[in-house]
Amino acid sequence: MKHNFGAGPGILPQEVLKQAAAGVLDFNGIGLSILEISHRSPEFEAVLDEAVRLVKELFEVPEGYSVLFLQGGASTQFALVPFNLLPEGGTAAYVETGVWANKALKEAKFFGNVAVVATAKEANFTYIPKDFTDPADAAYLHITSNNTIYGTQLQEFPKSSAPLVCDMSSDIFSRKVNVSDFGLIYAGAQKNMGPAGTTLVIVKDELLGKTGRAIPSMFNYQTQIEGGSMYNTPPVFPIYVSMLTLRWLKAKGGVEAIQKENEAKAHVLYEEIDRNPLFKGVCVPEDRSHMNVCFLVENPEHEKPFLKFAESKGIEGIKGHRSAGGFRASIYNALPISSVYVLIEAMQEFAEKNK
Amino acid sequence: MKHNFGAGPGILPQEVLKQAAAGVLDFNGIGLSILEISHRSPEFEAVLDEAVRLVKELFEVPEGYSVLFLQGGASTQFALVPFNLLPEGGTAAYVETGVWANKALKEAKFFGNVAVVATAKEANFTYIPKDFTDPADAAYLHITSNNTIYGTQLQEFPKSSAPLVCDMSSDIFSRKVNVSDFGLIYAGAQKNMGPAGTTLVIVKDELLGKTGRAIPSMFNYQTQIEGGSMYNTPPVFPIYVSMLTLRWLKAKGGVEAIQKENEAKAHVLYEEIDRNPLFKGVCVPEDRSHMNVCFLVENPEHEKPFLKFAESKGIEGIKGHRSAGGFRASIYNALPISSVYVLIEAMQEFAEKNK
Repeated sequence: MKHNFGAGPGILPQEVLKQAAAGVLDFNGIGLSILEISHRSPEFEAVLDEAVRLVKELFEVPEGYSVLFLQGGASTQFALVPFNLLPEGGTAAYVETGVWANKALKEAKFFGNVAVVATAKEANFTYIPKDFTDPADAAYLHITSNNTIYGTQLQEFPKSSAPLVCDMSSDIFSRKVNVSDFGLIYAGAQKNMGPAGTTLVIVKDELLGKTGRAIPSMFNYQTQIEGGSMYNTPPVFPIYVSMLTLRWLKAKGGVEAIQKENEAKAHVLYEEIDRNPLFKGVCVPEDRSHMNVCFLVENPEHEKPFLKFAESKGIEGIKGHRSAGGFRASIYNALPISSVYVLIEAMQEFAEKNK
Repeated sequence: MKHNFGAGPGILPQEVLKQAAAGVLDFNGIGLSILEISHRSPEFEAVLDEAVRLVKELFEVPEGYSVLFLQGGASTQFALVPFNLLPEGGTAAYVETGVWANKALKEAKFFGNVAVVATAKEANFTYIPKDFTDPADAAYLHITSNNTIYGTQLQEFPKSSAPLVCDMSSDIFSRKVNVSDFGLIYAGAQKNMGPAGTTLVIVKDELLGKTGRAIPSMFNYQTQIEGGSMYNTPPVFPIYVSMLTLRWLKAKGGVEAIQKENEAKAHVLYEEIDRNPLFKGVCVPEDRSHMNVCFLVENPEHEKPFLKFAESKGIEGIKGHRSAGGFRASIYNALPISSVYVLIEAMQEFAEKNK
């Protein structure tokens, strides 16, 4: 049995995979595959409707927000956010908490001015900067809720008079969030919500249409809202599997229930990292991510052997990102706590052998 | 048994669906689903490499062209083509052969001037306009090789001194094409190449980087080329199924072999439409599509009953597009000629009952 700690595209629930495979052969018993039916068919429209409804329900999305399933990943949103929200000559504020935040702010520069109000670059992004002046005059304040590469996470969101825009790609639906605190939330599906190929956007309608800029149809959130995420052919299968994953989450008790599980998984794993003399954490404890647990070996000579040892136990995907090194165990929603215990046992067994 | 004549997302080969479903459960026996592995894993890199290689082989793509698998559908390309190829103040030439050509030229207006060098709008797009002046000064000449909605197809491509840009979404890999005649070819996968969620782009490298315009990373073909279609997480599963479909096409004998089958399918079906007194074709015979066969009933009262009768024979998806009416039988690569004969027999039986 494999224990999938990969950082993304990441683990999906086994029952979702079974349902998805069945749908590829024969979708809901209609005699056709989900891959070969029209997106305008009542069958797929029901899928998209349910996906949107589940997002609204699970995240308690208030009135006045639209929920979109788009394409292009969070990297496309890095450009679409300023395209739609940053007026010519205006300024957007960014908190730089890692590689993805940095990529986001670079794209904003194509559309206007960027103010980096805080950065943790000098400490290799091992903490979340929290003290900065409220960028009251900015078109928006952009934050990244979880830093997949270095393993930090915002445990509280900043207060801001400018609309808060948040990239939640790697922790969406992992914990309760007050959507009304945000102007826009976006997330690539492939870490916590579904497979690669679709991107969730939750946007406060009243923020749109104010830049004075002409926006091509596919890049304009308003076109996508009017088209109900079907201005053109949507990514049918990625949306289908995301819907199945959201349905699974609801059946598990929703975001509140999964948050408890995620906290328990993170707690036992960090406890072992702190306790085990062979390993050490990377980030400031108060900013540690509950999704991507980054850790190092005290003795660099143990790095390769531990990776190999873990693999022999069926543990997959714990090699750290090339820009961070060490190990990274991604413990997304679909990863059972039993897999975390397998990793902990492997760490203990390895320490026992190497003491 | 269902006979899937849907216009898109359209029919896929049964063996591809079986392989795809197996990959969702356990990809190549690695113990993980294709939906939950890293796009940077050697397993997925091999998939993407093979997909690119198969495109090059099947379409005989010459040196100097790049092959990309992107997201966003052809509708995104409507904007990316002028974003990347139309300099500020420059003019792009468009041939307007239907709804999709019209949508493409509208997006170009966000980036520069548009010259519509020919249109068939006055005849409700039932023919392909062929006489127009070579737009020698244009940044490019844009054409749409097949008109999915009205059922026309360019049987010959125009000569042009400007680079030829072609939307081949609905007939890619259905017939031989001389790629070196084109500056850029693009196609949404979901009609003839795979499921919804990925878009093929074949671009002549030397055309890029000449607009003087700063282009956000995800919209810049050069970024995508440098990233090998992996500047960010690609749509893993849609690319996988496209690769399986291309592999299937190669095993069938490639584009030349499928072209013969497609011509045979179109020939027998149009023959029946012309012969059967209850039905009539929509388009000028010389411009008729070999992919989307549009036809009408002579007596409008026969429309609904024939649709119902066809459905009773397992025939799916032949209702015409809302803007064209009547019937449309899409006979993409994966549709076997046996299904075409089922439709022909239904037409004959219906005519017998209603004479």
